[in-house]
Amino acid sequence: GRRAHGVDAALTAARSAYLAGFAATSSVEAGKRFGIPVVGTMAHSYVLAAEDELSAFRAFAERYPDATLLVDTYDTAQGVERAIAVANELGPSRIAAIRIDSGDLGAETARARRMLDDAGLPDIRIIVSGGLDEHQIAELVARGAPIDAFAAGTAVVVSQDAPSLDAVYKLVEYDGQPRAKRSPGKPSLPRRKQVWRRSAGGQIVEDRIARFDAPPPDSPDDSWQPLLRRVMADGRRTEESRETLAALRERAAAQLSALPDELRGLRVESAFAAAIEESLQL
Amino acid sequence: GRRAHGVDAALTAARSAYLAGFAATSSVEAGKRFGIPVVGTMAHSYVLAAEDELSAFRAFAERYPDATLLVDTYDTAQGVERAIAVANELGPSRIAAIRIDSGDLGAETARARRMLDDAGLPDIRIIVSGGLDEHQIAELVARGAPIDAFAAGTAVVVSQDAPSLDAVYKLVEYDGQPRAKRSPGKPSLPRRKQVWRRSAGGQIVEDRIARFDAPPPDSPDDSWQPLLRRVMADGRRTEESRETLAALRERAAAQLSALPDELRGLRVESAFAAAIEESLQL
Repeated sequence: GRRAHGVDAALTAARSAYLAGFAATSSVEAGKRFGIPVVGTMAHSYVLAAEDELSAFRAFAERYPDATLLVDTYDTAQGVERAIAVANELGPSRIAAIRIDSGDLGAETARARRMLDDAGLPDIRIIVSGGLDEHQIAELVARGAPIDAFAAGTAVVVSQDAPSLDAVYKLVEYDGQPRAKRSPGKPSLPRRKQVWRRSAGGQIVEDRIARFDAPPPDSPDDSWQPLLRRVMADGRRTEESRETLAALRERAAAQLSALPDELRGLRVESAFAAAIEESLQL
Repeated sequence: GRRAHGVDAALTAARSAYLAGFAATSSVEAGKRFGIPVVGTMAHSYVLAAEDELSAFRAFAERYPDATLLVDTYDTAQGVERAIAVANELGPSRIAAIRIDSGDLGAETARARRMLDDAGLPDIRIIVSGGLDEHQIAELVARGAPIDAFAAGTAVVVSQDAPSLDAVYKLVEYDGQPRAKRSPGKPSLPRRKQVWRRSAGGQIVEDRIARFDAPPPDSPDDSWQPLLRRVMADGRRTEESRETLAALRERAAAQLSALPDELRGLRVESAFAAAIEESLQL
């Protein structure tokens, strides 16, 4: 979170990432505030502050149960050897994982996995980090790199590929009357709207945008659901209870799995168009 | 600020932009908190909520002195005509400016300027907005568009071209001993450092990075200045007073004007290299 746009953004990003399916956060404050599992590993500065790498690993593993040792400060292969030495010295259960933060992560993790397995330590996991985004992760997965967890930070908190959400507020109805902007390239569709969604077999089939007061679309089955509902009135929430973060996370996972397959890849070719009902056309 | 990564980031961005030379902010809270001049114009929703554009302009100008009227909700030329009508009706001094937020800003502002001048209203200024960044602004300036002020938001608060600062903390010395990381592609230079800068005739000439305890570079003149100084010790500020935002802004302007000319354009071809003294070489 240190590259987030302020403390507030770091915490919001940690919460949103967990909601979207991330397993944990490295932010202790986000863990406390939202009940997200907190994970962490040692820093390069911890290794550098010690007399040597072996002393750093030993001190860290003695202090923290289930330690994750950062092995790439000097030389990664040597770092893995030293992690193995400490695991043999203190007992394999003291070391949960090693972390590699630089180099060719596919090649480095393959070598580290072989070294750990050859040393009889198949339960020590391998975590990678270092400016990772979804494309690099997909590539490493496709290469079959023996990686147990990916730690992504910067690309998540600042959304490098989409640094801002290009959404605006448009007035579409006022005092019961339709309103629409007609600026070149920025026209808006007037009137208060509802979005109706049809699903079948647990999969989303189509969406339709209609006037808010129109009846549900005519259809042989009954699977149309309205997506918009009132959550505030007169500046106050209309529902007593807030959903828990766990419930939101479950819902997000269910909705992701209900998406058509062709929309679930990293490179989406076709958009899922929402049809606009005739009553709304200008 | 609505596209900033949280409230905190919006306020920080408003303060930083003012420090860097922006004239004002549209954030009322940033104005209150940091003493930055606040400016604002009407929203498209204000125009849309009214019976018609002319009523919106009239109501806004009657309510706010030095009004800036947003003229592009429906048709920009017509919007300018209506702004002129309201200026003639209420007196030209009621209208400080018009704002155009869409279309070809070069062509739209040229036409609007002619219309205002022909109506005998040369003092009404023209403000533009709408996803502007430094390159679009440079292009409009180069085209000679008659624009009095540029309002930039999203590209400033989220830094679209550089969404994160790729800076990290590296331990370089510990207990008097040098420390250095040797990860592939990420090596660091050991030891505590000082940066010495030589200026001549108000212009920066060269920088040198040296050991912190080394004497100033040997030079026929006395213009070397150390850039790093202690501001915290034992977790506390070492200086009593914080500089005011106005003082910081003045210093930023002075430092910008001291930069070599070739570093002050939007497209910088050559970096200003800082020489590394021999005592620091590995």
